[in-house]
Parts: sequence; structure tokens; C-alpha cells
Amino acid sequence: MFTNNSVCRLFNIEYPIIQAGMVWCSGWKLASAVSNAGGLGLIGAGSMTPDNLQQHIIKIRLATNKPFGVNLPLLKSDIDAYIEILLKEHIKIVFTSAGNPKTWTPLLKENGCKVIHVVASAKNALKAHESGVDAIVAEGFEAGGHNGREETTSFVLIPAVRSVIDIPLIAAGGMYNGASLIAAMALGADAIQVGSRFAIAKESSANQAFKEKVVEINEGETRLTLKRLIPVRMIMNKFYNEISRAEIEGADARQLLAILGQGRSRRGIFEGDLEDGELEIGQVSALLHKIESAKEIIDEIISEYSAIKSNFAKPD
Amino acid sequence: MFTNNSVCRLFNIEYPIIQAGMVWCSGWKLASAVSNAGGLGLIGAGSMTPDNLQQHIIKIRLATNKPFGVNLPLLKSDIDAYIEILLKEHIKIVFTSAGNPKTWTPLLKENGCKVIHVVASAKNALKAHESGVDAIVAEGFEAGGHNGREETTSFVLIPAVRSVIDIPLIAAGGMYNGASLIAAMALGADAIQVGSRFAIAKESSANQAFKEKVVEINEGETRLTLKRLIPVRMIMNKFYNEISRAEIEGADARQLLAILGQGRSRRGIFEGDLEDGELEIGQVSALLHKIESAKEIIDEIISEYSAIKSNFAKPD
Repeated sequence: MFTNNSVCRLFNIEYPIIQAGMVWCSGWKLASAVSNAGGLGLIGAGSMTPDNLQQHIIKIRLATNKPFGVNLPLLKSDIDAYIEILLKEHIKIVFTSAGNPKTWTPLLKENGCKVIHVVASAKNALKAHESGVDAIVAEGFEAGGHNGREETTSFVLIPAVRSVIDIPLIAAGGMYNGASLIAAMALGADAIQVGSRFAIAKESSANQAFKEKVVEINEGETRLTLKRLIPVRMIMNKFYNEISRAEIEGADARQLLAILGQGRSRRGIFEGDLEDGELEIGQVSALLHKIESAKEIIDEIISEYSAIKSNFAKPD
Repeated sequence: MFTNNSVCRLFNIEYPIIQAGMVWCSGWKLASAVSNAGGLGLIGAGSMTPDNLQQHIIKIRLATNKPFGVNLPLLKSDIDAYIEILLKEHIKIVFTSAGNPKTWTPLLKENGCKVIHVVASAKNALKAHESGVDAIVAEGFEAGGHNGREETTSFVLIPAVRSVIDIPLIAAGGMYNGASLIAAMALGADAIQVGSRFAIAKESSANQAFKEKVVEINEGETRLTLKRLIPVRMIMNKFYNEISRAEIEGADARQLLAILGQGRSRRGIFEGDLEDGELEIGQVSALLHKIESAKEIIDEIISEYSAIKSNFAKPD
């Protein structure tokens, strides 16, 4: 299966399922479980110090022999320290997000890394392609966590990006099951990146209270906010209400930063403060009803994919 | 082809492609062209007086022998007059949007109408189902014109609605080609409703300047706004800037209505005032590059659909 899939070949993995790098969720435990189950696990460096990151890299190597990667938001203030760890540890797969892909792609590539950049528009996909990346993640408006300003949804973004690049394309935002995988492929993607469903996997380091909250919420209970800073999709809780009321009342970036304060996502996702924490998750949370292991998730996606695919093989 | 498709059977049409009812675009000319090409054409009553509507019904019957329908926003102030026309003219297919489906569905059904209601959430899909409708249109955040407050995108909305209803399901929002049709079906829809692409079809009554503007714009150039009235997706022009500035500055519904004034969508779409008119269109406009006939559009969707489908029939 998937022997001709460009993303599976690029990473040497069994299934075209990439786990999203997610703050406070995706350490070595989740990433190794995903990789061991045939997908590509990513250590999410967004919520780690450089030292933390190194520890997670050391631990994941004890937990899996399969390929894995690191997700690194390029806007980090001490970005050089993270890059140094990646090179020192001979990391082979790096997903970069935010920031300019031209800054670090050449150095990473010279050191034998595959570099994949996350974009929210065809315009930025082209820029990333020009910087020499090996693949693109196209992240739609429905995705959790940080997002683009264009508000383009996966249904429009996937064909838009596919129309301007011919390198491997990974669809993110709204992806959670076998139907998502087929739909994303029909629209031009080669693989999917699954965030929310892995965020509440058994192996995710998110707090149990956060996972249960995600299982519990319904459609319309996440919103893209903080549009005057970096847009973030989160659950509409007390913290969200404070931030969005300030936005409606015309707060500027400085005032929003003051409300935001420090460590809100740690407080929400890792410590389980469901009121005052920032609970980043995608729209697809409305469709998630249980906490499963990474292997259960991947096996189900693949069996659903096969069933839908053989349905399409029948005449109309 | 499509002999077992539930939407094709419901309407007795050849292809599972429904043209959206769109203000100032979809009179008898566009609707008959779509129906003649094997899809389902809809007369959009939203921008018509009851008399206009009757004239369009008389004319479409001279232009096609194929099934067609009428789209009626239920929030119209003189809704009774429209319903009267529908019954007097023995209209067989009515798509209702906005408003409460329970108010008119029973009367329409008693008079032999198939009734289809447009929703933007699974919650409202359930309500519509309980009111006895024959099918549901699930309209995602990416759709043009009036939209829901939930901001749920098609990738999430289609499976969410499918999980609560088992009647025929039509996906709207981001739908424009054969890949959309396959993707929507994979996610649980039986058919697609195409808006933006038909809005700029040769047979659409929209102004040529509007059609050319839609062809010209790129991703990120439409936005869902007027969220304190009824949310509407439109092109970000001078009028949009005025409305959204007022929203950012905290205008209430009354103040927004004053800026909105009367006839803004007529001015934009029908009269071609690209600055001061309301230019309603979907995100998918970024992917539209030419003005075609309804038949060209439908034929292309079907041939793309068949090509992708036979690709899925191959082993991975």
C-alpha cells in the first residue's frame, strides 16, 4: 500500500498520515507512538526549551527505530539554539512554521535535512517552494492553534496550493479520518496532517481535563481569534471571552498581549485550567468522541480509507 | 451514471450538481441552462418581487422541460406572497434558506413540493429533518453570500451533518469542480451545490464587470462580515472596508444597517458598481479563471469526476 505515494517515499513511512506538531501535546511519547504505528510522528518544539527538545530527541530514539521529525516555529526568539540542536542531533525531518522559510531552509538542507514548511496560502506555498523545501503543508482555516490571516478553508486551499506547486503536498485543517484522507487526495494532496485527534490521543502529554473537554465540545465551540496578533483557533472559554471582548472593544496589539500574558497555552492544555487557559484545538474537535491510542487512530483511518476507496471503484 | 444517486433520484436529474440560488445571478436564464445541461437549476427568489418570481417561472417553462426549482429565503417580509406564487405555479422543488423550516415545510409538502433546507450546522440539520424536509444543503463557511454564525467549514460540516441525518445531503461552500464532487462524496454528501462558478456563467444575470472582478481576484480577497446582522461573504472592496471598519469600531446592528442602506447587492452584482456595491461571492472565486456556459461547467465537472474516480479505482 502507498508504495507510490510521494509523501510516504519522501519520509520512508508506511501511511500518508503525519501527526501535527502541537504545543504541550506532542513530545517523544506521542511522536514515537505515531511513528511506530506507521505514520510520521513530530516532536513539537513550540512549547519546549532547546534543552527540552534535546531530551525529547534522545528519548524518542529509544522509543522508535522509525522515521520521526521535529516541528519548529521559526518565530522563536532563540531560534539559533533550536537549529543548533537539530543539527547536532542529526535530525533528518524538520517541519517549519511561521517565519520566513528562506532563512533556515538552505542550512538545514545542506545538513541532510528534509525541510517541510507550513503555509496558509498559495502565495506562501510558492515562496516556500522557491526557498527549496521538500514538501508543503497547506493548513486551512479550520485547523487548531496558530493559523493564517487569509481564512482560506481546506476545500479551497488544497486545490489553490496544488495549482502552483508540484512537490509533495500535505493537507492540514479538518483532517481526522479515512474520509478526510480520500477527500484531501481528491483535491490534490498526497497526505494529511492530523492535529486535534492526536492532541487527545492517549500518548499526548495534554492534561486529561483538556482531552475530556475536547471530546465534550460541539460544533461552533472553537473560534479563530487574536487576529491582530497571530490568529489562533481555540475553544470559546472564559479566557477566549476576555480576549474577544477586548478585540470587539477595539483593543490594539499591546493591550491584547497584556491580557494574553505568559504561558496561557501551558495553563490550558498542559495544566488543564479550562477557564483561564488557552485551549488550542481545531474545528474537527466537534467530531471527536473518544480518547484513543495513536495506533488505534492510524489503523482506523487506513481501514476507512480502504473502504471508501473500494466504494469509489464501483460504477456509479 | 448516477442511477443510484439519491439526489439525482429525488429530483429526477442526470448529474448530482445543483446550481445555488443567488441574488441577481440566477433567473430563468441561468436556471434553465443548468437544468438543460443535466443539473438542477434554481430560480433565486431572494432578489425578486413575487411578480418577478412568477415571470421567471413562466419563462423557465418555455426554456426547459427538465426539472428546476426555486430558492426562497424564508426571512422575506412578504413571504406569504411568494409561497402563494409557488403553490399557484405548482412548483415541485423548493430550496428554503434562513428562517424556520417548520413554518412552511408542511404546507409545501402537502402541495406536492419537495422541500430542501439550507443549514450551516448539524444542529439545524436535525431541526430541518424533524420538520420533514426531503434533503439538506450543508453550507460551509467558505460559501459566498449569506452564511451561518458557526464558521464551520465544509471539511467539518459535511461529516457533522451526515452523522445526524440519513436523508439526501447536498454540500455547498467551496464546491466548483470534479474534485470537489469526489471530496464531498467521500465526506458523506450525495451531491454538490455550486454557487460562485455559476454566478459568473455566461447565462448569469450578474453584470459583466462583476463577473470579470470575480475572475480577477485572488485568495484571501473575500471575507465573511456583517456578523452582527446576518453574516455575508463578499469581496473586500470599498463598501466592505466601510462596513468592517464600523464593525471594528464597535458599531451596533442599527448603525450597520444605516451604512448598509438599501439595494447594495443589486448595485454591486447587477449594476456592476465594484466600489460601493456588495459583491457576494465564495472563497472559491480565487480558483475561477474564466467565464463559461453552464453546460461547459457541468460537462467539465463530470469529466473531472470520472477521471479522479477511475484513478481511485487503481490500487495504491
